[in-house]
Amino acid sequence: MLTKLRKAFDRFVVLEDDEWEKFEEVIIIREFTKGEYFVKESEPCKYVGFIDKGLFRYYYQIDGQQYTRQFFFDNNFMANYESYITNEISNAWIEALEDATVFLIPRDSLFELYTQSLNFQKLGRKVAEYLFLTVSTKYKSFLLETAEERYLDLIKNRPKVIQNIPQYMIASYLGITPEGLSRIRKRLYKK
Amino acid sequence: MLTKLRKAFDRFVVLEDDEWEKFEEVIIIREFTKGEYFVKESEPCKYVGFIDKGLFRYYYQIDGQQYTRQFFFDNNFMANYESYITNEISNAWIEALEDATVFLIPRDSLFELYTQSLNFQKLGRKVAEYLFLTVSTKYKSFLLETAEERYLDLIKNRPKVIQNIPQYMIASYLGITPEGLSRIRKRLYKK
Repeated sequence: MLTKLRKAFDRFVVLEDDEWEKFEEVIIIREFTKGEYFVKESEPCKYVGFIDKGLFRYYYQIDGQQYTRQFFFDNNFMANYESYITNEISNAWIEALEDATVFLIPRDSLFELYTQSLNFQKLGRKVAEYLFLTVSTKYKSFLLETAEERYLDLIKNRPKVIQNIPQYMIASYLGITPEGLSRIRKRLYKK
Repeated sequence: MLTKLRKAFDRFVVLEDDEWEKFEEVIIIREFTKGEYFVKESEPCKYVGFIDKGLFRYYYQIDGQQYTRQFFFDNNFMANYESYITNEISNAWIEALEDATVFLIPRDSLFELYTQSLNFQKLGRKVAEYLFLTVSTKYKSFLLETAEERYLDLIKNRPKVIQNIPQYMIASYLGITPEGLSRIRKRLYKK
């Protein structure tokens, strides 16, 4: 069952068998029902999750308004990585949008593994670099693109979001109101 | 002269003396005159710089329009870290806004050092985590805050930007037009 996870880590660093065994020992398998939270805003993010099955949303809730930061699909890692690194409270929610199975990698165990081998440190570096690239690309899209261009990118590069996520959540992910998204969609369909 | 740089690295990892010596050997000291580029958009970013003296701007130029991503002040690291990690072309400029002295850490040498000790790998991880936090915070500010709130943050947390940078560059850094920034400033001064 954990083969998938090992393959996912291979993208970053190929761990030796004895390293992988140490790794496997710390992993916890957990089921989430729809509406359950992987992280609550008042708690630190104690795990990196790898989604075996399911779909999650990472969002901020401020004055009754929700701001969607990210969606996490199966076969992908998920965390509030800011909180995971700093051990400070999350200030954001990560919620299961459907029933899910997740492999949990506990923060304390991973940080302990980092100290044990060059390969584990390298894994930590590669993951951080990968996440840097991800958020950097998103930041750039807010700086350089219009909401319409971001929506077109989404259709092209992340069709799963378009197919699986309600419009109002997509709107907040694009940094616009649901009405703004409606206008964009009308414009696009007219063309 | 490199003591400053060692201190700056101590924030991430305290290197052993023999590790530091290896590190020192690869560092290049370079002068930049105002208007010179640390990175050009058509080239990969081959160095991380540590600014001993001077001020730089990191920006995109698209259809004749400039979009400022970041300012780098003395005693800080600078790079197009995306390009530095991936070795792909920068697609952005980093320009000296005044005469400057910079310590250059060549990419190839640093990646070679990573393979030599746990501490160097850890350094790479810590730097990537730090940069992740930086860009993540900025992304969050675009998602959650108005331009006026971002401007107030800037006044509070990065007064050097307000004091040293022309208004039109600050406007593009905030993701708004110079006229938009003027309106915000008028509103704030009225209060």
